Amino acid sequence: MAGNSFGEAFQITTCGESHGGAVGVIIDGCPAGIPITQAEIQAALDRRKPGQSHITSPRNENDEIHILSGIFEGKTTGTPILMLAYNQDMRPEDYEHLKDVLRPSHADFTYQEKYGIRDFRGSGRASARETLARVAAGAIAQKYLAINHGIEFISYVEQVGSIKTNIDHQIVTMDMIENNIVRCPDEQTANSMISLIETVKSEGDSIGGIIKGVIRHLPAGLGEPVFDKLHADLGKAMLSINAVKGFDIGAGFESITMRGSEHNDPFIYEQHKVRTSKNDAGGVLGGISTGEDIYFRVAFKPVSTIHQPQQTLTRDNESITLEATGRHDPCVLPRAVPIVDAMAALVIIDHLLRSSVMSQRVLR
Amino acid sequence: MAGNSFGEAFQITTCGESHGGAVGVIIDGCPAGIPITQAEIQAALDRRKPGQSHITSPRNENDEIHILSGIFEGKTTGTPILMLAYNQDMRPEDYEHLKDVLRPSHADFTYQEKYGIRDFRGSGRASARETLARVAAGAIAQKYLAINHGIEFISYVEQVGSIKTNIDHQIVTMDMIENNIVRCPDEQTANSMISLIETVKSEGDSIGGIIKGVIRHLPAGLGEPVFDKLHADLGKAMLSINAVKGFDIGAGFESITMRGSEHNDPFIYEQHKVRTSKNDAGGVLGGISTGEDIYFRVAFKPVSTIHQPQQTLTRDNESITLEATGRHDPCVLPRAVPIVDAMAALVIIDHLLRSSVMSQRVLR
Amino acid sequence: MAGNSFGEAFQITTCGESHGGAVGVIIDGCPAGIPITQAEIQAALDRRKPGQSHITSPRNENDEIHILSGIFEGKTTGTPILMLAYNQDMRPEDYEHLKDVLRPSHADFTYQEKYGIRDFRGSGRASARETLARVAAGAIAQKYLAINHGIEFISYVEQVGSIKTNIDHQIVTMDMIENNIVRCPDEQTANSMISLIETVKSEGDSIGGIIKGVIRHLPAGLGEPVFDKLHADLGKAMLSINAVKGFDIGAGFESITMRGSEHNDPFIYEQHKVRTSKNDAGGVLGGISTGEDIYFRVAFKPVSTIHQPQQTLTRDNESITLEATGRHDPCVLPRAVPIVDAMAALVIIDHLLRSSVMSQRVLR
Amino acid sequence: MAGNSFGEAFQITTCGESHGGAVGVIIDGCPAGIPITQAEIQAALDRRKPGQSHITSPRNENDEIHILSGIFEGKTTGTPILMLAYNQDMRPEDYEHLKDVLRPSHADFTYQEKYGIRDFRGSGRASARETLARVAAGAIAQKYLAINHGIEFISYVEQVGSIKTNIDHQIVTMDMIENNIVRCPDEQTANSMISLIETVKSEGDSIGGIIKGVIRHLPAGLGEPVFDKLHADLGKAMLSINAVKGFDIGAGFESITMRGSEHNDPFIYEQHKVRTSKNDAGGVLGGISTGEDIYFRVAFKPVSTIHQPQQTLTRDNESITLEATGRHDPCVLPRAVPIVDAMAALVIIDHLLRSSVMSQRVLR
Repeated sequence: MAGNSFGEAFQITTCGESHGGAVGVIIDGCPAGIPITQAEIQAALDRRKPGQSHITSPRNENDEIHILSGIFEGKTTGTPILMLAYNQDMRPEDYEHLKDVLRPSHADFTYQEKYGIRDFRGSGRASARETLARVAAGAIAQKYLAINHGIEFISYVEQVGSIKTNIDHQIVTMDMIENNIVRCPDEQTANSMISLIETVKSEGDSIGGIIKGVIRHLPAGLGEPVFDKLHADLGKAMLSINAVKGFDIGAGFESITMRGSEHNDPFIYEQHKVRTSKNDAGGVLGGISTGEDIYFRVAFKPVSTIHQPQQTLTRDNESITLEATGRHDPCVLPRAVPIVDAMAALVIIDHLLRSSVMSQRVLR
Repeated sequence: MAGNSFGEAFQITTCGESHGGAVGVIIDGCPAGIPITQAEIQAALDRRKPGQSHITSPRNENDEIHILSGIFEGKTTGTPILMLAYNQDMRPEDYEHLKDVLRPSHADFTYQEKYGIRDFRGSGRASARETLARVAAGAIAQKYLAINHGIEFISYVEQVGSIKTNIDHQIVTMDMIENNIVRCPDEQTANSMISLIETVKSEGDSIGGIIKGVIRHLPAGLGEPVFDKLHADLGKAMLSINAVKGFDIGAGFESITMRGSEHNDPFIYEQHKVRTSKNDAGGVLGGISTGEDIYFRVAFKPVSTIHQPQQTLTRDNESITLEATGRHDPCVLPRAVPIVDAMAALVIIDHLLRSSVMSQRVLR
Repeated sequence: MAGNSFGEAFQITTCGESHGGAVGVIIDGCPAGIPITQAEIQAALDRRKPGQSHITSPRNENDEIHILSGIFEGKTTGTPILMLAYNQDMRPEDYEHLKDVLRPSHADFTYQEKYGIRDFRGSGRASARETLARVAAGAIAQKYLAINHGIEFISYVEQVGSIKTNIDHQIVTMDMIENNIVRCPDEQTANSMISLIETVKSEGDSIGGIIKGVIRHLPAGLGEPVFDKLHADLGKAMLSINAVKGFDIGAGFESITMRGSEHNDPFIYEQHKVRTSKNDAGGVLGGISTGEDIYFRVAFKPVSTIHQPQQTLTRDNESITLEATGRHDPCVLPRAVPIVDAMAALVIIDHLLRSSVMSQRVLR
Repeated sequence: MAGNSFGEAFQITTCGESHGGAVGVIIDGCPAGIPITQAEIQAALDRRKPGQSHITSPRNENDEIHILSGIFEGKTTGTPILMLAYNQDMRPEDYEHLKDVLRPSHADFTYQEKYGIRDFRGSGRASARETLARVAAGAIAQKYLAINHGIEFISYVEQVGSIKTNIDHQIVTMDMIENNIVRCPDEQTANSMISLIETVKSEGDSIGGIIKGVIRHLPAGLGEPVFDKLHADLGKAMLSINAVKGFDIGAGFESITMRGSEHNDPFIYEQHKVRTSKNDAGGVLGGISTGEDIYFRVAFKPVSTIHQPQQTLTRDNESITLEATGRHDPCVLPRAVPIVDAMAALVIIDHLLRSSVMSQRVLR
């Protein structure tokens, strides 16, 4: 009801502010018996942590993850898993001057309106730092999905500003993505993106872009119509990530101009399996997975924190000029790639467990 | 868990197949005391019913709505409201030949995979006929939001194929929308759209497009971060509508190429109210409404039913050529406009009631 | 949130007032493929319908059940099942004089306080007529549990007023229960109970009692600690039935005076199965089923409608003497037996489906 | 779905095993603006901590509570509150010999059956140590309910074994309860209870009893029929506490032998308020609070850990004699009093917030 939980069968509840004691997550409904180590979870977090390259925020957080329950002798026990990263590099003095300011396109105003009180330090609960809890939970989901079902999550940066790669998502590998700091699997485009981000950073500005999400080796049958359609839950998951303003699946917004005769994916029988000869649907029909690859696009706006003077208001409704001085990312996309993977994994594991109910249901 | 409910405080559960006994909805959590008549609900349904013009499906359903509980002496009582439309113009013989066919880009295959059984008549549960239940529930939500808060829902067809109106959504009125059968508030563009749909229909084909959703006079403070952000729930609601493949809010996919300095909306103080001087955010910051208009785009693929021969499979994995003969809409957008309004209203009333908890929570 | 749904994996939502259009239920999450007929559901309803004997309410309702969705060619399809019983024997004139009266120990006052409006005819939503929806849904759950798992529900009347049977619940059969109109499997005690109810009825009064609930052949492993413990959900289910004021499981209130050394059930190994040599736990340890029989007691107060003059208030807070003239049951227990079975079945199927997730979860 | 969350509007999710890293809770949906200190929460925990007297378990845990999020400058912010107590006095060596033993009437067998794996140290997740998380969350709920509504929670030990106080719950004060180590507000009976517990302890045995729960100054209108009736949710809450086997409200099991004419509570008008002249209902009609005191009984079995030899099985199904050597409580009731208060407060705050939705709903 209050919005800090996600999922039904595999439910996560996150907590924590940017400059409070810790950021954390409880997973309730995690399958028992998954072998998982702190190091595996840490590896996922390291992909999103700040300071990993010169194009990300220099905030110095190790984001060391602590597992406090639910894992015993190296395996999940089926009981709730609590994971925490204590906050370390806190500089509340950086934020004191923001106490009474409504930063443009930040959540200061809306949190104040909603709750009548807010932790103003580093955006408090609205900080993207919250997403580390999602990545930690996603790491366990990804482990389960990989070893139990061979499902892969291969998201990458497809576009930064106007610079776009046309690489076919079907040939992308994790190595190609991790081969450069911007996480674009096309080396040449990646270099252009990095240059653009450097320019934007030097101007004290920020820039948006697109992450392409890809899910491979998913079984057919996941998704719960008519409301919890698989792509509807993926869409919600992505739209819940900070700075995301759009989502589409398969041909998506491009299908607008297509005719049905062009868009429809013919069924074929291939290697003892029902498949489609092309995949404009993006792996989902009627809200249920077809078994083909799922691919989707996630549109990120440029982050709101910029190092340029901006006109805005104080909480007393007086005009002021804001000169931001905090640390920030000129482009969040490289660090957001593991967040997209994590949220996708959280949707898939939840639907897989929910569908396992359904498959149990069917009397054969 | 099984996906046929939407909302938490104002929760709807829909039921019914295209050719079963009825399509219906229970609303649980509807505020008590709302004055509402069958005629008001019927009026909303008439906007989505088939056969309303020559560019929609000729299926002859009155979609007469029956109220069976929860309304007493013209007012809602706070108890569950059951509304039903009995199915009438059923021609199961139209579908007998489809019993064993996997129609391309329909949900036949995925329903069969998931449930091991399906009602094949007229797409069964996957039929867009299900959305009449949403519109009936949405009509009550819209009534409450209008009389209690003055909130308006003004969705319209913005694009069909490549034909697009550039009308400013802020000047659109319901009269302008209802002025033509395609529900585009720009007369000239509407005519072009109608011509295009006539052409597509004559070719036995279908075409996609965009509905622009607009919500006006919303108070600030709605939305439940970090997962049930207002735009995340709007996105899920829209993506759960048949044939929808994409969603964005505010500048959306266009914000990709913008700089932060360009995208950020400055706060101003105007007529005793905190506002923004422009609204690229689309009325939501940090997942919470700002009080500015919410506007978003919903991308519809061309519907899958076409009157052209298509290659596909039978349930026994044999190739066949399918010649569709059922009734269909060459373009669903005109009829989908009230569905978008209804789903938007269902999201807003749910968040309004949930936020009323929060406002009660705050100790002032 | 608004309280008219029960269950998570197998979720029912009921609707309908005593004298509105219909009483109904949507089941969302029903397994696909269950063979079920209208007649089977009707048979369950006939056990709770009024007028079945001279010791029950003479209201003349057939309670004919109509299935409007979710069942196709005699089997459940996995989509929502809507079932309705239209109201027939309505005599609103019986209730007009009650419009402004707060009947003692009825829900008139509390509904009015809560909702500010109420359907006063025949208790409206607070009528026990609502429970027919539970019995209809329970019939499908019982069918599934019987054919898939051999699970049996054998509830019976154990006590009426001070008259109590000491029969061992392990030897009770459905035939023994249905052998008399009071549904007590001990013939002699049954006759005493019937005499007592006749006396109470002749005095225009009412009487309470206990239903013993019994569930057999349940597998071990059902229940979701720490809050959704199996007996906690059974308790809630029973306490949600009209007129129920108490619940205990196993030795229950009698375990108060026992020592641990007496109460503890030793584990034994018998016929290749871990069992307990006695079962004071009532089949649940740590909130999870052990595989032993579950047995519990449900305490019913005497129903509030009596045919004696009572002092009470009008809605304008004026004292009046109320002379009840409506139809009523002097003792609800005989008709409540199938309701207890139904609610127990709804809890068990829900936990079974939820546990199927868990069993899928475990990596072996 | 997985059972570790309680409540909808004020939702808690608990985590932690007896001998893992910590026991904790996230509260999601806590009202913003509640003034609360660590010391206030600690005071509630001190009432349940072990080692507080010679009749409780000597486990030496300070149960120091740490607040890691959701409270800023002494007030709740409306964002999730994480509270933790790190485990300290862990003696895993005490439990090594229990690794493969199924202790009678403990949850060892059922956890093993359900999850296929378990943390055997000190009962793991099934340990009553988990309830400290409930008490911490309940302390915040109690604070809100006290300062906002003047609602009081006054639970006490009514019966231990056969020793029972007949004190009228209406005259009991917190001072009377805290006046002795057994938390029975009747001094003389308390002394007898203490003697009995000492005897039981000296025999290496355990004993059960009853806690009477009392809630005062509740407004009318709380409760969400037809399933989430106020007393049904109270019942579930109590039954979810370790060792609880029964619950009744108002006259409860005693109403079985009453006539309706005796049980019905007449409405009267007193000091400008609708009241009842007596309160056999226990403050709830139709599942909704009447405004009269709520009182209920909670039946605890004798705890399963005893210091006497017991016959049982190993995990390999071999018979052994178990000689328990761990620390335990001969009678859990004194320490369970604050748990009953906490769970009651969690139910009430949840329904109060849910009802605030409803009161917002009503158009007046």
